[in-house]
Amino acid sequence: MALTPKPRPDGIPTPAVRRLSLYLRELEALLDTGTQTISSRQLGETLGLSDAQVRKDLAYFGQFGQAGVGYRVEELSQEIRRILGTDRPWNVMLVGVGNLGRALLAYRGFVKKRFNMVAAFDADPALIGKHLTPDGVLVRPMREMAEVAARMDIRLGLLCVPAPAAQSVAEQMVAAGVQAILNFAPTTLNVPPTVAVLGVDLAVHLEQLSFHLTARDQGRPAAAE
Amino acid sequence: MALTPKPRPDGIPTPAVRRLSLYLRELEALLDTGTQTISSRQLGETLGLSDAQVRKDLAYFGQFGQAGVGYRVEELSQEIRRILGTDRPWNVMLVGVGNLGRALLAYRGFVKKRFNMVAAFDADPALIGKHLTPDGVLVRPMREMAEVAARMDIRLGLLCVPAPAAQSVAEQMVAAGVQAILNFAPTTLNVPPTVAVLGVDLAVHLEQLSFHLTARDQGRPAAAE
Repeated sequence: MALTPKPRPDGIPTPAVRRLSLYLRELEALLDTGTQTISSRQLGETLGLSDAQVRKDLAYFGQFGQAGVGYRVEELSQEIRRILGTDRPWNVMLVGVGNLGRALLAYRGFVKKRFNMVAAFDADPALIGKHLTPDGVLVRPMREMAEVAARMDIRLGLLCVPAPAAQSVAEQMVAAGVQAILNFAPTTLNVPPTVAVLGVDLAVHLEQLSFHLTARDQGRPAAAE
Repeated sequence: MALTPKPRPDGIPTPAVRRLSLYLRELEALLDTGTQTISSRQLGETLGLSDAQVRKDLAYFGQFGQAGVGYRVEELSQEIRRILGTDRPWNVMLVGVGNLGRALLAYRGFVKKRFNMVAAFDADPALIGKHLTPDGVLVRPMREMAEVAARMDIRLGLLCVPAPAAQSVAEQMVAAGVQAILNFAPTTLNVPPTVAVLGVDLAVHLEQLSFHLTARDQGRPAAAE
């Protein structure tokens, strides 16, 4: 999730884009059960959103669905994938192959969505030239970043360096042509306004679980997933 | 984020709980700027939610705000922390100290929110008895889980083992008294209905960034964070 998302220049709120991902997962689960059409009320229901909110979110991106029929699940899934740009593969770089970087290089959830981790960079000479995961990519020196990014058409990058190095590494990534950064360093980055940055805040997930335990302690019903 | 969240037995949609975290981050950012009160419209604005949705979400948890005044930022922050259970510290265990596990043990974002990683477990004899991070916890054998969980009052656990081991390890965690599991293994867990499970899907974040690049390719304005 973004740390304090700002509104986008095109007027589409960042969280509305995020909800597209949630709608897509919902639609994909429906497809698996063979459901063909769904109303905005139904689509919003498991996400705790009103039908008006669902329609408003989707309306930012086009005209979907038919009065009386609702949305065709397959069609809307494809449209959302097209909007999110996940109807095609992306080449992704990762910078900083510490524990988190190595874990992310091996993370199968990325490949499943066709985000291919094709290049890794680190400043530590001891790591350069190594393959850190079984079928993993070569770790390259930082100075090769621009050349590799251009050659492999990499515009997406994961930033996994410690916080004190994050700003300077982000600048190197931007100089190398990276236009969108997923930031795992617990710090805010200053990048040109044309570069998208998304900060990952894993504590949010634990908050959801402490909510569950607190609700139980107070005698409220416990949560399912 | 949850993989296909199900509605909670208490009728509160899981995503509404998730939005509490977003509201809280928004309120905390406002506090830093010295803002004292905020309307539901303003609170929803950066999150792309209608004022009605904000009021509906908060109404699940109580009566907040005053007509004509809105919400007091400080007061609502405290209320949300109380609801989320983050007004107190939690002891957390981590199972599976591979790369991801080690990265999470060192993740400072947890400690900041008073989620204390107090115990780590692994099945690999080579890792047991080691401290894997500078100020890190001891890695213990799986068989000590129940005793340690009871002694340290641990009810929250991070599951970081490979997918094939996830179900069996989840069962051990539940047997040890863990009531809420943050699941980093890309697999669905079957646990008793009283245990909360949240699956982390990191690909969602990359989707948000591929959206940005796709929008730019199509000549739509690029996104700020």
